[in-house]
Amino acid sequence: MLAKLLRPKTTVSAHCDLPCGVYDPAQARIEAESVKAIIEKYHANEDPTFRTRAVLIKEQRAQLVKEHLWVLWTDYFKPPHFEKYPQLHQLFNEATKLAGAAGAKGTMDPKVADDLLAKIAEIDKIFWETKQS
Amino acid sequence: MLAKLLRPKTTVSAHCDLPCGVYDPAQARIEAESVKAIIEKYHANEDPTFRTRAVLIKEQRAQLVKEHLWVLWTDYFKPPHFEKYPQLHQLFNEATKLAGAAGAKGTMDPKVADDLLAKIAEIDKIFWETKQS
Amino acid sequence: MLAKLLRPKTTVSAHCDLPCGVYDPAQARIEAESVKAIIEKYHANEDPTFRTRAVLIKEQRAQLVKEHLWVLWTDYFKPPHFEKYPQLHQLFNEATKLAGAAGAKGTMDPKVADDLLAKIAEIDKIFWETKQS
Amino acid sequence: MLAKLLRPKTTVSAHCDLPCGVYDPAQARIEAESVKAIIEKYHANEDPTFRTRAVLIKEQRAQLVKEHLWVLWTDYFKPPHFEKYPQLHQLFNEATKLAGAAGAKGTMDPKVADDLLAKIAEIDKIFWETKQS
Amino acid sequence: MLAKLLRPKTTVSAHCDLPCGVYDPAQARIEAESVKAIIEKYHANEDPTFRTRAVLIKEQRAQLVKEHLWVLWTDYFKPPHFEKYPQLHQLFNEATKLAGAAGAKGTMDPKVADDLLAKIAEIDKIFWETKQS
Amino acid sequence: MLAKLLRPKTTVSAHCDLPCGVYDPAQARIEAESVKAIIEKYHANEDPTFRTRAVLIKEQRAQLVKEHLWVLWTDYFKPPHFEKYPQLHQLFNEATKLAGAAGAKGTMDPKVADDLLAKIAEIDKIFWETKQS
Repeated sequence: MLAKLLRPKTTVSAHCDLPCGVYDPAQARIEAESVKAIIEKYHANEDPTFRTRAVLIKEQRAQLVKEHLWVLWTDYFKPPHFEKYPQLHQLFNEATKLAGAAGAKGTMDPKVADDLLAKIAEIDKIFWETKQS
Repeated sequence: MLAKLLRPKTTVSAHCDLPCGVYDPAQARIEAESVKAIIEKYHANEDPTFRTRAVLIKEQRAQLVKEHLWVLWTDYFKPPHFEKYPQLHQLFNEATKLAGAAGAKGTMDPKVADDLLAKIAEIDKIFWETKQS
Repeated sequence: MLAKLLRPKTTVSAHCDLPCGVYDPAQARIEAESVKAIIEKYHANEDPTFRTRAVLIKEQRAQLVKEHLWVLWTDYFKPPHFEKYPQLHQLFNEATKLAGAAGAKGTMDPKVADDLLAKIAEIDKIFWETKQS
Repeated sequence: MLAKLLRPKTTVSAHCDLPCGVYDPAQARIEAESVKAIIEKYHANEDPTFRTRAVLIKEQRAQLVKEHLWVLWTDYFKPPHFEKYPQLHQLFNEATKLAGAAGAKGTMDPKVADDLLAKIAEIDKIFWETKQS
Repeated sequence: MLAKLLRPKTTVSAHCDLPCGVYDPAQARIEAESVKAIIEKYHANEDPTFRTRAVLIKEQRAQLVKEHLWVLWTDYFKPPHFEKYPQLHQLFNEATKLAGAAGAKGTMDPKVADDLLAKIAEIDKIFWETKQS
Repeated sequence: MLAKLLRPKTTVSAHCDLPCGVYDPAQARIEAESVKAIIEKYHANEDPTFRTRAVLIKEQRAQLVKEHLWVLWTDYFKPPHFEKYPQLHQLFNEATKLAGAAGAKGTMDPKVADDLLAKIAEIDKIFWETKQS
């Protein structure tokens, strides 16, 4: 926990110096962590009401992941970014597809949540590179 | 385009035979028409309350355009589509950027709404080609 | 109906020349098609998570059908329309009741979705008649 | 204030004994009171930021009035009610039209809010009559 | 029902004479009544689709209870109120916790809804006392 | 920027080991940064459409600040936390009041946004202390 305490608060949410405002992939990541936690709790609890609520709430959080990612893709990233990172379009498309309903078979598979978090981490890495330059 | 014009009405909202459901670019187009109409009414009416409402409602409809387009891009289009139409990612990115707030200067410019409608028409054309094949 | 079939695409989303903006019953129809598709998929898949998601998503789409119809009834149609089409109030009331939750018994009955689509088609027919005159 | 204190709490929100749940025109009335209060505050304050906020928030509350009324009209009232009160369709249509944006000229007119409250009072009277029988 | 008919309408929704607008704990109470009614209907109906809908709709109404209470706590009550009623913070915290998901075990327990309604009645009592002074 | 790069990703969004899920005051902070940025941009741009949009979007982001804070106060913090930090209720009440509309005079005052960020930083500090114990 030491690293956390030492971390300067101000870097968590970076200002956008363009008209587009403030962006931070942490928003998508927090919701994706929530999706993962819900899946884990779903498997640990067989009460049918709990499970219905888990499916419902997971659907809402996953929708928020999609929305946060869409905003980054449309509003934050600009043509020069897409030129420098030619994989960026596909990365966002795959991440939002993962965040979306992956069909009945996959929706409660913890692997889907891990894959989603990995994609968001890739986006996060590129995002902070573009903020530095 | 002939096949499209002759196509019976019932195909306008086509079923998706995958788990992803029903899609139709008409949803984005109707909201974009609304954006255009609001811009025109804004310029024809100098009442400040009317204009505030126009800005507010245009912002909401433009947000709906973005959401309808994002859903098509993430949920309807699949990897084979992106291979066949390599311009598709950029087309959606540009269309959603146009739908979004383009900064104070452009937001009440009718040309932005026309450009947006033209982009949606391009997406619409590709969409229906993929439905036919 | 011939006039409607031959009508060029661009009239699908017609401008309202009043302050009320742009209307199109296609919005309600697309969501109702979605309701129908979800019911069909529900019956074809016995996975409990899939079924919970189907009930949840159907509820959302049905709510959108209601909202699109309410907007037409309140914002588009004017007193002279209600005079000319005295059945219009009841038609909208029945259509929105069908769109709403019809009780546990009916909610996954494909017939309800077909009846809903038929009501929307009646509304659509009247809508376009009022646009032509 | 005595009358208020003596009023039995349980009559404020009446249970619906049908599957449709709990209804109360007070929900629409409270939002309409809010619309009226916003209009009054708008006229009493010339600060442009305050006025923009007033227009925006009034739009949101007016939308809630419409939604509460639509729900009553579609979900609470049944065919026998419409037979007994033949004016009910038109009453709801006029009330929701008043709640909606009445065009730039009327939107900050306190009379519109008073008319809206009067319509809601008419609906409220009929509502409680149907609850008693 | 006599008491209801005699009750002056104007006391139901009281105006706030501050910039914060119109408040009434009846909004939270109506949604909490709805939560209670849904729980009762859930237990009376074993149809799985009905039950899924009940869980989903209860979740939405409970969220509305929380939101109405939060608005009262943040926007209506002022420092002097919290001084005069030192229990008020904890009362709102407990009420919103009750309104929220109380974990899988409690969510379909009618007692939770009754406790919630009792807390809202306590808040309502304090609210009207502050309006009188 | 070095500190940021060295910071372990996993600490940004902490899992809640209770049924309540994942919480992180960063969500409120990011929206509050957005509020601050919007205020700064408002003062730097006199275009009336831009300013209307700024007021509108600020209102939405401020609402999100409130919602994220309310969720922490109701869903994350438990009775033992309120015992250990007796100032916590008032801190959240003041923070959400600051996030809310502070009346026409204060709404475009950068100081309000700074005060809001300071309150969120206090909450954030307590939050992470409770996570460590």
